[in-house]
Amino acid sequence: MTTQIAEQTEFDTAPGALALSPTDADLLFREAHTVNTFTDTEVSDDQVHAAYDLLRWGPTMMNTVPLRLLLVRTPEAKARLAAHMSPGNVDRVLAAPLSIVAAADPNFHEHLGTLVPHLPNAREMFAADAAARAGIARTSALIQVGYLIVALRATGLHAGPMGGMDPAGIDAEFFAENGWNSLLVINAGMPSGPDASRPRAPRLEFSQVSRSE
Amino acid sequence: MTTQIAEQTEFDTAPGALALSPTDADLLFREAHTVNTFTDTEVSDDQVHAAYDLLRWGPTMMNTVPLRLLLVRTPEAKARLAAHMSPGNVDRVLAAPLSIVAAADPNFHEHLGTLVPHLPNAREMFAADAAARAGIARTSALIQVGYLIVALRATGLHAGPMGGMDPAGIDAEFFAENGWNSLLVINAGMPSGPDASRPRAPRLEFSQVSRSE
Repeated sequence: MTTQIAEQTEFDTAPGALALSPTDADLLFREAHTVNTFTDTEVSDDQVHAAYDLLRWGPTMMNTVPLRLLLVRTPEAKARLAAHMSPGNVDRVLAAPLSIVAAADPNFHEHLGTLVPHLPNAREMFAADAAARAGIARTSALIQVGYLIVALRATGLHAGPMGGMDPAGIDAEFFAENGWNSLLVINAGMPSGPDASRPRAPRLEFSQVSRSE
Repeated sequence: MTTQIAEQTEFDTAPGALALSPTDADLLFREAHTVNTFTDTEVSDDQVHAAYDLLRWGPTMMNTVPLRLLLVRTPEAKARLAAHMSPGNVDRVLAAPLSIVAAADPNFHEHLGTLVPHLPNAREMFAADAAARAGIARTSALIQVGYLIVALRATGLHAGPMGGMDPAGIDAEFFAENGWNSLLVINAGMPSGPDASRPRAPRLEFSQVSRSE
């Protein structure tokens, strides 16, 4: 029955349907846009730390929390990163005050003694199968990337996520020692002006993305 | 220099560091817990639609927005879903008022005429390579799962995400016709009481998950 109602009335958010304040719904989702060009204003580690102090609480499989962040700011490091970006993203990385390489840590199991204290054998469950760990890390870290983008916006920063890159090249360049696997790059900062974002592109209707059983 | 500051002062969110209200930071992240047992209160399509009207705006690669949602409520459909869950998750699915199967649509390219109007050939770019589409869909849909969990909480609902399941079994059971690929199952509703969640498990410190270059 509820299905029929939803199909008959395509609406934006109904009045009273959110516990979240309208201001914060706009901040995090409704008025937030991917930003391509930023001002020169620096983004401090404290700002990213404040975002992390939100996203850290988001759920992951077995509390593995495998998302890792490489914060790239120096011209030298920016050049090393830009060399592995798709052509359209090179200048974006070079110009943004901060580029965050979001990565998955396939060695997350080394922290499970801390993270999953109620399962004393959690580390050993994963120790033998590096390929399984890489898959598990990728899945949960991508979910955490969703939290990260929301959390950056929660600090007042704007985000420009980019998937166009050579992940293997980035991993060889920056993660040869710690084994992290890069997922995407997110520029962060304040928008340069009214042309910092493309016009909003359309989205699909609820009836196009959902079914009920 | 900012790196040194962050390493010297491990803190929870510093005063004034968030644009998000403290109440909403608690609602979405800091006081939100994975819920395992729910009351019988029904969860309507309208409530999920309100969550969708937030998460729909979250960024995805090339605006492909490949996340799809199967809303499972009837006892018959619950039994079909529970048959493919890990043993510890069977009763959780059967008891929750709503179980959402979050899935990725590898045929997202069929919507690109609508979603990416500034790239007229977008559909054709993806038409020939179904394996590449499946990978792209999985990556962006997992990021959208992060938005979904935040957005469900924004409506006042509580979420219980579960990865322990047989994705291929679920896909054969429910998605043989539309080709969706299941990612995880998220129970949604209101918590049954003070024991509905486990005690909060630890998380890693910012200095453990981040590096600066």
